[in-house]
Amino acid sequence: MMSDDKRLAALESVKYIKDGMILGLGSGSTVNWMLRALSERIKEGLRIEGIPSSKKTEKLAKELGIPLTDFSKTTKIDLAIDGADEIDGNLNLIKGGGGSLVREKVVDACADELIIIADSSKVVKQLGAFSLPVEVLPFGFEVTVANIEKLGGIPKLRRKENEIFVSDNGNYILDCSFGTIDGAQALHEKLIRLVGVVETGIFSGMADKVIVARNGEIKFLTRN
Amino acid sequence: MMSDDKRLAALESVKYIKDGMILGLGSGSTVNWMLRALSERIKEGLRIEGIPSSKKTEKLAKELGIPLTDFSKTTKIDLAIDGADEIDGNLNLIKGGGGSLVREKVVDACADELIIIADSSKVVKQLGAFSLPVEVLPFGFEVTVANIEKLGGIPKLRRKENEIFVSDNGNYILDCSFGTIDGAQALHEKLIRLVGVVETGIFSGMADKVIVARNGEIKFLTRN
Repeated sequence: MMSDDKRLAALESVKYIKDGMILGLGSGSTVNWMLRALSERIKEGLRIEGIPSSKKTEKLAKELGIPLTDFSKTTKIDLAIDGADEIDGNLNLIKGGGGSLVREKVVDACADELIIIADSSKVVKQLGAFSLPVEVLPFGFEVTVANIEKLGGIPKLRRKENEIFVSDNGNYILDCSFGTIDGAQALHEKLIRLVGVVETGIFSGMADKVIVARNGEIKFLTRN
Repeated sequence: MMSDDKRLAALESVKYIKDGMILGLGSGSTVNWMLRALSERIKEGLRIEGIPSSKKTEKLAKELGIPLTDFSKTTKIDLAIDGADEIDGNLNLIKGGGGSLVREKVVDACADELIIIADSSKVVKQLGAFSLPVEVLPFGFEVTVANIEKLGGIPKLRRKENEIFVSDNGNYILDCSFGTIDGAQALHEKLIRLVGVVETGIFSGMADKVIVARNGEIKFLTRN
């Protein structure tokens, strides 16, 4: 059912893709549905080029025959479509559960428009139930852990199959519990100032449109 | 003569090293003199452990028999000694000419005390004659270039022997000309907010003591 909703939100989002667009391709299971739907439209004649935000997305896009480009050829993205781990009423997002937050942010931030797609389980009153992923440099990450603790967070070094998880950029991810997050942008700015922090999973003021599917129905979220 | 002054400043700095200290070991030609002097004191019985801020410093320290430790064992540094490319009257620094700015900042920022050593050519009225090194993620660095240009800078991708220079952290460095830099901390904060910027070479409010040698004479700079 949740998977159906992911697919439904994804199908709705591809309606906004126009011929000739440069697309930012997000990452994650909902985006994977979007890629499949996009691939169908391409088979019907739609011409677009995509910039993938993770190696996983790049791989799937290639398998699906989606034409790709990269930032060496263009720094203008017309539309990015991406998922999220949490979405609040102000359309602030937490992203990074899949470990691609930095590349996603690079892609999403330079897009003229950002559409977020999700099933309704991602919509929350306040951010923070989902631990905030923070990408950090491996060198001295122990110092960064201590500094995040001083800001009131409880950071946990992400592991995968007993190994430290390494991002596409060669960095570590700290999943940081801050309890309920009141000021998303303020927290982001405190964290980003820490030496060793590369980027945070807080995407504040970036989403232009949020498409949420719940039990088979589409809903568009707007800022409170 | 300039090399003599580097050595002289370095010799002065090791006087502040006390038995049992955890030392942050900076990077660069002036720091290399400090490492040599430190090595002599270690041969005389001084017990310290150093945390190197670059692979180059690590290599030289090992050759000189300086005992090393790392952040997996301690996140407390008693004293860091480092160089700088520019030093203004408020003891704001520009660093990163050698490409190790991020690791240097990690080390310097967590030290209880930071001593900067330099020859007098590094002392300036206002920062900015030296291009500001900014470490950026390789992914989408072209977007970061465009964003720094929007802030009024002229970024130049650092190359070494015709290849793109890659930092110890696997990132690129943009050497950014901003003309004269009035508000060092403000510029740093604007840059650090850009997605894709890992760290800047502006070290503001970090230096506790600056030891400068000029034509064989030692001078201590204090904040204006």
